[in-house]
Amino acid sequence: MAHALDALLHPKSVAIIGASDTPARIGGRPLRFMLKENYKGNIYPINPNRDTLQGVKAYPTIKDLPETVDSAIVAVPAAIAVDAIRDCAEAGVKSAVIFTSGFAEAGNEGAQREIEEIVRGSQMRAVGPNCLGVFTLTDSWYATFANAPDLLKVPPGQVGIVTQSGAYGSHVFVAAQSRGVGCNYWVTTGNECDVDVAEVIEYYAQSPDVKVIVAYAEGMKSAERARRALAAARDAGKPVIIQKVGRSDLGAKAAQSHTASLAGSDAVYEALFRQYGVYRAETTEEMVDVAYACQFGRFPAGRKVNFQTISGGVGVQLADAAEKYAMEAPEMPAPVQKKLKEIMPFATVRNPVDFSAQALNQTDVMTENIRLTIAEADYDSHLVYLAGVPASPLTRDVCLDIMQTIRSEFPDDLICMSMCGADEVVPQYEAMDYPCFEDPDLAVRAMAGLAHFGEAFRRGAGDPPPAAPAGMLAAPEGAVAEHEAKRILSSADIPVTREALAATADAAVAAWTEIAGPVVLKIASPDITHKTEIGGVLLNVDGEAAVREGFETICARARTASPDARIEGVIVSEMAEPGVETVLGVINDPVFGPAVMFGMGGIFVEVLKDVTFRLAPFGKDEALRMIDEIQGRAMLSGVRGQAAADLDALADALARLSVFAAENANRIESIDINPFIVHGAGAVAVDALIVPKKTD
Amino acid sequence: MAHALDALLHPKSVAIIGASDTPARIGGRPLRFMLKENYKGNIYPINPNRDTLQGVKAYPTIKDLPETVDSAIVAVPAAIAVDAIRDCAEAGVKSAVIFTSGFAEAGNEGAQREIEEIVRGSQMRAVGPNCLGVFTLTDSWYATFANAPDLLKVPPGQVGIVTQSGAYGSHVFVAAQSRGVGCNYWVTTGNECDVDVAEVIEYYAQSPDVKVIVAYAEGMKSAERARRALAAARDAGKPVIIQKVGRSDLGAKAAQSHTASLAGSDAVYEALFRQYGVYRAETTEEMVDVAYACQFGRFPAGRKVNFQTISGGVGVQLADAAEKYAMEAPEMPAPVQKKLKEIMPFATVRNPVDFSAQALNQTDVMTENIRLTIAEADYDSHLVYLAGVPASPLTRDVCLDIMQTIRSEFPDDLICMSMCGADEVVPQYEAMDYPCFEDPDLAVRAMAGLAHFGEAFRRGAGDPPPAAPAGMLAAPEGAVAEHEAKRILSSADIPVTREALAATADAAVAAWTEIAGPVVLKIASPDITHKTEIGGVLLNVDGEAAVREGFETICARARTASPDARIEGVIVSEMAEPGVETVLGVINDPVFGPAVMFGMGGIFVEVLKDVTFRLAPFGKDEALRMIDEIQGRAMLSGVRGQAAADLDALADALARLSVFAAENANRIESIDINPFIVHGAGAVAVDALIVPKKTD
Repeated sequence: MAHALDALLHPKSVAIIGASDTPARIGGRPLRFMLKENYKGNIYPINPNRDTLQGVKAYPTIKDLPETVDSAIVAVPAAIAVDAIRDCAEAGVKSAVIFTSGFAEAGNEGAQREIEEIVRGSQMRAVGPNCLGVFTLTDSWYATFANAPDLLKVPPGQVGIVTQSGAYGSHVFVAAQSRGVGCNYWVTTGNECDVDVAEVIEYYAQSPDVKVIVAYAEGMKSAERARRALAAARDAGKPVIIQKVGRSDLGAKAAQSHTASLAGSDAVYEALFRQYGVYRAETTEEMVDVAYACQFGRFPAGRKVNFQTISGGVGVQLADAAEKYAMEAPEMPAPVQKKLKEIMPFATVRNPVDFSAQALNQTDVMTENIRLTIAEADYDSHLVYLAGVPASPLTRDVCLDIMQTIRSEFPDDLICMSMCGADEVVPQYEAMDYPCFEDPDLAVRAMAGLAHFGEAFRRGAGDPPPAAPAGMLAAPEGAVAEHEAKRILSSADIPVTREALAATADAAVAAWTEIAGPVVLKIASPDITHKTEIGGVLLNVDGEAAVREGFETICARARTASPDARIEGVIVSEMAEPGVETVLGVINDPVFGPAVMFGMGGIFVEVLKDVTFRLAPFGKDEALRMIDEIQGRAMLSGVRGQAAADLDALADALARLSVFAAENANRIESIDINPFIVHGAGAVAVDALIVPKKTD
Repeated sequence: MAHALDALLHPKSVAIIGASDTPARIGGRPLRFMLKENYKGNIYPINPNRDTLQGVKAYPTIKDLPETVDSAIVAVPAAIAVDAIRDCAEAGVKSAVIFTSGFAEAGNEGAQREIEEIVRGSQMRAVGPNCLGVFTLTDSWYATFANAPDLLKVPPGQVGIVTQSGAYGSHVFVAAQSRGVGCNYWVTTGNECDVDVAEVIEYYAQSPDVKVIVAYAEGMKSAERARRALAAARDAGKPVIIQKVGRSDLGAKAAQSHTASLAGSDAVYEALFRQYGVYRAETTEEMVDVAYACQFGRFPAGRKVNFQTISGGVGVQLADAAEKYAMEAPEMPAPVQKKLKEIMPFATVRNPVDFSAQALNQTDVMTENIRLTIAEADYDSHLVYLAGVPASPLTRDVCLDIMQTIRSEFPDDLICMSMCGADEVVPQYEAMDYPCFEDPDLAVRAMAGLAHFGEAFRRGAGDPPPAAPAGMLAAPEGAVAEHEAKRILSSADIPVTREALAATADAAVAAWTEIAGPVVLKIASPDITHKTEIGGVLLNVDGEAAVREGFETICARARTASPDARIEGVIVSEMAEPGVETVLGVINDPVFGPAVMFGMGGIFVEVLKDVTFRLAPFGKDEALRMIDEIQGRAMLSGVRGQAAADLDALADALARLSVFAAENANRIESIDINPFIVHGAGAVAVDALIVPKKTD
């Protein structure tokens, strides 16, 4: 088979182990009856306890089957599940769907590890344990005891769903159905003894049957798989919409008590999603609404949106929504306004265009209005709001005629419809490739989602990370003082203050002479991190006598405050020019490895926690996007009379820090560069701390 | 009739003027046929152009009718509408529904003013022009050509809807129907020549037929009516949910080009809504969802919520949602956890309680679980998440049984349900007074809405504003210098720095002696507002000689920089102790009058625009709520080693400023107190500016 998961999602032969037990009590009917209806492959019931199952002869063990099956459904109690799984692995079964619960999610880590080892030691791929199974609608392959497939409302489409939670996986499927999302694959990964959410996303990214990917997850276990999967989807132009829960501290606590997933920090997931162009949905309602819009496969080239409304009242709302969702609703170009006014003297034509009910009385006028706007004004997408008019028997055909004409003339444009009470006619618009929404605000939200993917697909992998300089030093294995930290970062081409470590007062004076101006004196000790608090920093020191006296003063203070500290001397450093204070940092996530942080200095970080992250390494364009994301962004454009800051130098430092972090993933716990002062031209690290990784 | 709007919403006799014209072309059928079906009052068609209307004899004018009607529907073209409205007024018609468009919304202000004057000079009340009419479902009174009433899905209930926009009014009604919101009244006010959104809200507040009020508006025209209406609703314990559009700059622009409403600043509406406990919905979907929840009339006493879930995966989402919507999900008390574990050893019982599918296999266990939680843990509300289980034929009855038992034991508790695919059984839960939601996150959002109303109703009007001090000075009629501004504010009991205006160097020295410590010297001139920029401020001046020299220096600088400025001398002011810098301010809104602003100093105001407003005057509790709303709130709790700020002194100053602003509504344009420094005990205004109202 082409892909490792084909046996799981397109099996030609299936064994059901213990199917009449647990699942039947929950799902309402034995699995194999669901399968039998239209499933074309061979089905083999197996029951370790009984000879027959409701009149069908059961095989005693998987080894007694006349063929090696593609998939086995394991639905026996926990006590015998491990043996059943081992039997499958030994029999060469290609995939297993393990419903059985009572493993890691119930604190039974040992049994879970046993399953993991069996599966890892075999060719078999498995979902679960503690999952609700999988289904492939087009194969009539329902390896689940969820009743979700009974609730089909729309024909199978090209959306693939994957969730960790089984019960909530059903919920996502049903919500998607209600929203008209045509799904093909549905996979729940449960405790993820083997296959995880990321691998399923990668399968969907490669499958010609999937165009849109929807995932609900509490976390991911492998950074490498996650990155590979999301990159594959992005490169294939397939939108990935994820509802990642466990965002709050509260949520993270619930995640720990519930799942077996590693609790990666939410900020790191946010970084991952931004980096790979994932749309992170806040709610399931949002997730399925955006997935619905994505089904139409139109991702606009920009954020400029035109609104056509039958009601001025909704025009105001749409303008609000454009701002809220970071869309742009620029005014209609004057020449187009002039033409529109000629055909619709009663209308407001700036954008929103309020054509009013009158325009619909004259089919040609309304058609010409939209035609002119699309053809002559440079919008990336259009939203036509018609209230309940398409639902009225009197105006239904007029509306359809107009939109049919428009579609025939503009087959590829993204044109969304917003209307109410028109459920019966909506399929007709959808058939013409018009995504339809009831709520006008949420229509704009979904259009912003499509624009998001348009940007992500065009961007692709983005700038490569800068090359590591030839002489880049390795991160230290133990604690080092500020001076050494800056020296190492400087070797990574991150600009730092000019400075020297002076072991003696004479050396300090020499350094001051070299710098040629007022200097900062700071105690240099790997054991003293809070230098200011012990009086270990003197600012603006100038003149030989002052430097000499300063040297002695802070050494004496340090010896008094920390008698046991190793004192290496005093750093003599240039005074950094004033500029915009920022903070650069690195954390090392247990799952995703080093992630670079960016924020503005002072209260932005301390009070507002206004920071953003990216997984290391990344290029300068990604760094520029980080900079644009923070609340305090305006500080860099020049406020309070300051000059605009050198964004290029800042982005360069972020990218270079990411390269350093990635190269030293095994050595660092965290890095702080605070402050990193950005000037009108250039930037400089004033203080730095590298915390080495703890070794067990 | 009891209320001025009864004739509009419960007419016993109706005239329809020109009913076969415009509306028929849009709405599909002549109005009076809709009316005739079940409407019990008398209907009189009137047509100025024809004798009969589709076989029914029409009266030539309203004056020819055999009785004075309660309501007249005006549906003639704009050219003859003003005359028709005048006829109605002269004939003593009690109310008019004016569909005709082509007035203020089309730039025809003159004709609109004519209508306004006719209506104002009569006893007649009117909605419109340019509206889509009104309806009262329980009277079968459909004075609209919208087809919304054809789309009834739920029986009439106790929700009243009012909108300015007609087309969007229909949309709101249809969206409400889809969400199971039982509406009775529906009013569109259009260009508001007379009745506005606020007056309809007040009618609903007083009507025994309305329990929940829903409004969509671009603005309000009368502050007094708005405040009275919202206070009436709050005092009657009726939730008001408003979608106010025109939030963005973009939106405000669209509002100007569209409506005849005064463009009140959005911040002032936000203030109004917060002050009166209005729930401001971001989207129509949110508005109807919260209205749906409010129909059940259960407003919890607090924000502590308990989650019961069949899926750990959704528990994480619920915990996230609790944080997002400012609900609290405290851990289950240990003794209750112990009892729950005894009956459900397989469950997680901290909160969320993950009872898992197993609990539903044992009706008694699940019932006992919820019973124990409600009875013994102190939660204000409960959410039970059941995924698709209530939809399954096998588990449907079990779920219903459990929830029936619970309801019989706890008739008054707010218990919400979240489930999917269970549309058919939802009415059964609703009949037991369980609000039902599909999306679990949005269920929490609605529950937060109910808690919001619970708080607003308990709070009521809140603390009265402080009494104005007997010697409170009036705001100045012209520009005054800082010193005078502070003297005036001080008379309103707002603390200011101790200071004196010194006309001579001798006087400055005397003032310095009096203050007994280092002082600030500032140039005093009503014509120099940017004192620092011209070098007109000296900090930390101490000693007689320094004070004398400083006096001369800044006077000289001022004379050089502004030769024509009136120089009153120099302010000699105490140095304010360091503390937390805040900004207090007042704006004077053209509709709502003075509103007090609060924000943190520096970048919080300058970069983040982190401010909040309240309409003046208000009491201290309202001021404390303002303080709690801002992003930079943590600055007041003591960060960077500072002591916690004196919130009482800050709130007191805000309330007193609001009293001063309200008393001087006709004199002030704006006030800035920046910085207002809050200390560990006490607070002080360091600089102040009072801008007098421009007189034309």
